Amino acid sequence: MSAPSTRLEIFPNPAPERDYTIRMTIPEFSCLCPKTGQPDFATLKLEYVPHELCVELKSLKLYIWSFRSRGAFHEAVTNEILADLAAATAPRFMRLLAEFNVRGGIYTTVVAEHRQPGWTAATPISLP
Amino acid sequence: MSAPSTRLEIFPNPAPERDYTIRMTIPEFSCLCPKTGQPDFATLKLEYVPHELCVELKSLKLYIWSFRSRGAFHEAVTNEILADLAAATAPRFMRLLAEFNVRGGIYTTVVAEHRQPGWTAATPISLP
Amino acid sequence: MSAPSTRLEIFPNPAPERDYTIRMTIPEFSCLCPKTGQPDFATLKLEYVPHELCVELKSLKLYIWSFRSRGAFHEAVTNEILADLAAATAPRFMRLLAEFNVRGGIYTTVVAEHRQPGWTAATPISLP
Amino acid sequence: MSAPSTRLEIFPNPAPERDYTIRMTIPEFSCLCPKTGQPDFATLKLEYVPHELCVELKSLKLYIWSFRSRGAFHEAVTNEILADLAAATAPRFMRLLAEFNVRGGIYTTVVAEHRQPGWTAATPISLP
Amino acid sequence: MSAPSTRLEIFPNPAPERDYTIRMTIPEFSCLCPKTGQPDFATLKLEYVPHELCVELKSLKLYIWSFRSRGAFHEAVTNEILADLAAATAPRFMRLLAEFNVRGGIYTTVVAEHRQPGWTAATPISLP
Amino acid sequence: MSAPSTRLEIFPNPAPERDYTIRMTIPEFSCLCPKTGQPDFATLKLEYVPHELCVELKSLKLYIWSFRSRGAFHEAVTNEILADLAAATAPRFMRLLAEFNVRGGIYTTVVAEHRQPGWTAATPISLP
Amino acid sequence: MSAPSTRLEIFPNPAPERDYTIRMTIPEFSCLCPKTGQPDFATLKLEYVPHELCVELKSLKLYIWSFRSRGAFHEAVTNEILADLAAATAPRFMRLLAEFNVRGGIYTTVVAEHRQPGWTAATPISLP
Amino acid sequence: MSAPSTRLEIFPNPAPERDYTIRMTIPEFSCLCPKTGQPDFATLKLEYVPHELCVELKSLKLYIWSFRSRGAFHEAVTNEILADLAAATAPRFMRLLAEFNVRGGIYTTVVAEHRQPGWTAATPISLP
Amino acid sequence: MSAPSTRLEIFPNPAPERDYTIRMTIPEFSCLCPKTGQPDFATLKLEYVPHELCVELKSLKLYIWSFRSRGAFHEAVTNEILADLAAATAPRFMRLLAEFNVRGGIYTTVVAEHRQPGWTAATPISLP
Amino acid sequence: MSAPSTRLEIFPNPAPERDYTIRMTIPEFSCLCPKTGQPDFATLKLEYVPHELCVELKSLKLYIWSFRSRGAFHEAVTNEILADLAAATAPRFMRLLAEFNVRGGIYTTVVAEHRQPGWTAATPISLP
Repeated sequence: MSAPSTRLEIFPNPAPERDYTIRMTIPEFSCLCPKTGQPDFATLKLEYVPHELCVELKSLKLYIWSFRSRGAFHEAVTNEILADLAAATAPRFMRLLAEFNVRGGIYTTVVAEHRQPGWTAATPISLP
Repeated sequence: MSAPSTRLEIFPNPAPERDYTIRMTIPEFSCLCPKTGQPDFATLKLEYVPHELCVELKSLKLYIWSFRSRGAFHEAVTNEILADLAAATAPRFMRLLAEFNVRGGIYTTVVAEHRQPGWTAATPISLP
Repeated sequence: MSAPSTRLEIFPNPAPERDYTIRMTIPEFSCLCPKTGQPDFATLKLEYVPHELCVELKSLKLYIWSFRSRGAFHEAVTNEILADLAAATAPRFMRLLAEFNVRGGIYTTVVAEHRQPGWTAATPISLP
Repeated sequence: MSAPSTRLEIFPNPAPERDYTIRMTIPEFSCLCPKTGQPDFATLKLEYVPHELCVELKSLKLYIWSFRSRGAFHEAVTNEILADLAAATAPRFMRLLAEFNVRGGIYTTVVAEHRQPGWTAATPISLP
Repeated sequence: MSAPSTRLEIFPNPAPERDYTIRMTIPEFSCLCPKTGQPDFATLKLEYVPHELCVELKSLKLYIWSFRSRGAFHEAVTNEILADLAAATAPRFMRLLAEFNVRGGIYTTVVAEHRQPGWTAATPISLP
Repeated sequence: MSAPSTRLEIFPNPAPERDYTIRMTIPEFSCLCPKTGQPDFATLKLEYVPHELCVELKSLKLYIWSFRSRGAFHEAVTNEILADLAAATAPRFMRLLAEFNVRGGIYTTVVAEHRQPGWTAATPISLP
Repeated sequence: MSAPSTRLEIFPNPAPERDYTIRMTIPEFSCLCPKTGQPDFATLKLEYVPHELCVELKSLKLYIWSFRSRGAFHEAVTNEILADLAAATAPRFMRLLAEFNVRGGIYTTVVAEHRQPGWTAATPISLP
Repeated sequence: MSAPSTRLEIFPNPAPERDYTIRMTIPEFSCLCPKTGQPDFATLKLEYVPHELCVELKSLKLYIWSFRSRGAFHEAVTNEILADLAAATAPRFMRLLAEFNVRGGIYTTVVAEHRQPGWTAATPISLP
Repeated sequence: MSAPSTRLEIFPNPAPERDYTIRMTIPEFSCLCPKTGQPDFATLKLEYVPHELCVELKSLKLYIWSFRSRGAFHEAVTNEILADLAAATAPRFMRLLAEFNVRGGIYTTVVAEHRQPGWTAATPISLP
Repeated sequence: MSAPSTRLEIFPNPAPERDYTIRMTIPEFSCLCPKTGQPDFATLKLEYVPHELCVELKSLKLYIWSFRSRGAFHEAVTNEILADLAAATAPRFMRLLAEFNVRGGIYTTVVAEHRQPGWTAATPISLP
């Protein structure tokens, strides 16, 4: 069991002439609560319109696993992952939705978006 | 069994430079019917775009419990909780939806919103 | 078993300074088919943005029961109930959706709306 | 609108040489609460193994409607309908399940069975 | 078993002063494939905003049955039924959605709309 | 469009040394009501343990279509189809369940079984 | 708001000559955790075959409410309620299933049964 | 087993005077992963507003099968199929959504659109 | 893309002293129809009580893929796979259920079982 | 973040005179694949009939967390957890069902049971 690499790999967008959307659902995100040390679990839903780069599936998986032993607050970690993915791929649009498991009887979901200045969708999108 | 504190705690928004959305589903709200004294039950669904402050999860739970022995009408209590949460966090946008259990064969839901003057969502939102 | 009163009771809106929405689902509407005399059943879904008045729950239930022995066509009765409720409460916006049980292999739903001249929703609404 | 006949019609079982099962789901049963006069609603689920007679669909519908203006307790009315249907058709086996709508926050279902002495199912049945 | 009449009957709209919506779901449409002669099955979903006329339920059922022995392609028959219904009732708006059963491993749905020139919905509608 | 053959084709059971179960769900059964001439629709669920013969899929489809223009009562037609299929394949066990669409507000299902004298299932079966 | 009576009322079984089953689903049970004082929530599912007595619906509701301010462990309170109900009605058979809301990421359900010595069901029952 | 033709057949749009929508769900797409050679599976959802031509169902099925032995990346193959279908039918609007089965714990969906310059929908559409 | 090995690998049962059950759901089975050459798709559900050997996951996946280019009838292929798996692992009990996609409007499922002579389950099992 | 204790705590069964059932659903089990080091996820479903001891909820949670950094095969770890829980509580009956997330396109579930010699359930149980 070696420590996984957490570097996000990219590959060239095969259809850069067109705005299209890639969605990835990742039901196996886990990190630790910084206050109590107990495991937290979430389903991540990533949606992006690539510009010149796409994120490679396997490196995304390893990147996600790298949070398994880290302490992370819900609001901060969602914004951090979005920022990492946007920095790696410079997309036209990107949205990350993180649905956390219930804690203290409360279910928390965080949704954050990144968009290139001036980009608008040909077909309107709305918040899920 | 001590009386819980009902003071809403806050913490600094970790990503104030960006509009993003926090959703919390609270299926365990309970108060008393002011007319009959019988328990009422509701699921609360809170959604907000924080500005400089976020609401802390545990204090939110205690605040919600503080209604357990109070008489409260559906329409009034939903607006009161929204007002308390908006006062504590001064969000860019906040919506509270309260789904009450059936009474007299009728299911009641109340939805109220608060927004900073002039705030608009980059990605359009609609009423759930 | 006394004849129920069918007068709609009202009470002052506890948060008239804000546009908010009240939804009521009433799964136990029943009337008679004017052609055949057979019972018809529907689920009513009421949604309104109150102005100065709200409709009282128990009187709404009695009002709904008053249709139990009346003959009523689907399209007409939906518009009649909407008109009665709008007359009683003078809301900013009101919508009534009536989902009737299958008859002759066909499921019928009728949706009617009332709005104060010039009223628009801060958060856009769409037809359900 | 004439008063419907409530007499249960029967017809000869077209396959009396074989044990087989007829199930009927009737989602539109309504009667009145003997205490409060308020309408009660239930879904009836009838299941029977006919002997020499089957119950005719249209007369069953009219029989069910005949309870619309009668006061009836949950436990008693379920047993009464089962007794009427069993008397009309003398089945090898008959079960009636009545799922009543929520009252006072409690959902009630009543299940009653009738069987000819000594009858057993070739394929075992269990309580639903 | 007589041949059913296929003439669509109409009746006056009981609330012509208001834009409202009538929806009818018809799960029992059947016609024949013109190529193979095999039966096709579809669920039709009709939605319209009446002007001066509404379509009568029973004649609609008989009209739908009249396709049972006719050969009909998916795209053509959906547009034909919409045209017939729009001609009979001259609605402000009408949409017909036909969901056909799977054929060759592919599920086909056709959606067509008719609207009076210049008509717009007070509450926005979108394609289902 | 030629008249389909209604002869049930068979083929040798490829594993006659073992009791195993074949289930077929046929959602597109249609016949005519003998009283009113109106189309009836049902989903058939066939389950059988073959002995020496299996029923061929395409001929089963054509056989099912042959009821499209026939008048047939629910109870009788279910028993007739079971008898035809059992006569064609002489199975160790066969069950036919027919779920008819709602008529007069009542949903009817008929379940009939055939078994070789003395056959019992190694793993117990129960009525669905 | 007066303190509710917690005495279980009974009434005579209207069909004591027959074994039949009464099921009640009570989604609004709430008590307090004896360790932390936090509210616990459960859905209770009661099922019984009455002998000479049935439990009255309204008194059952008040009895259930009486736990709202009591500390109670999951396993103990389920057995206590079953014992109270069995003592009040002396049923032929009684089962209580309590589904508690998630605590610490774990969902707990407790199922307990009472039966008269020697009683067996004509139609076999199994554990839900 | 002959090699299927992969040429997309077309037929004239039967209602070219009107914008309407054809949707096809194809749950049986399969290709091979170019890296590992393992089979990939996807459900394709095609939606288009035809101009002068429609795509013929059977040739679409054969075209889809032609990918069964080809290596194909998720993002590229979705754009390729959309391009082929748009080239064959020159539609006013076309969208292809491909939902791939889970790989490495991640579910991927790709959505691409094509539209004639200047075309807009009379009834607004949004991204599914 | 190399041709996958289709040899089923095994490993020693880690708990041979106890009867326990392993279930595997394989939603990606595909073969070819021997008559038409068209792809068929099925979900396989395997359930077994191991004796001394368990089937290794990755080799099972490769074995399943080996059917991708083979012609296979529904009834025969289900029995063949069961026979192969039972030969490789010599289980106390094994059941294979294959749910095939709709063909000709009919959904087919085949269920076959293997058991060691004299084996019985401590907790009764029934046919799913 | 301290290392959690993994010792299972127990408490006396509050109703030892009666056979009753405790069920716990634990959706947040995670361990590591011994071959690849990648995280595995499962939902555990525990069901037991206590004898003199019950397992304490919080220590169960900590025990479950202790697998987070351990390598563990599906079949072995399910039997190990069952053995630990049975050793700690000496129950009359105990069953553990572990539903693992999909790996290689295959979903695996393992079900193991322990029972005191001679124990039988008053109400029959079957394998879920």
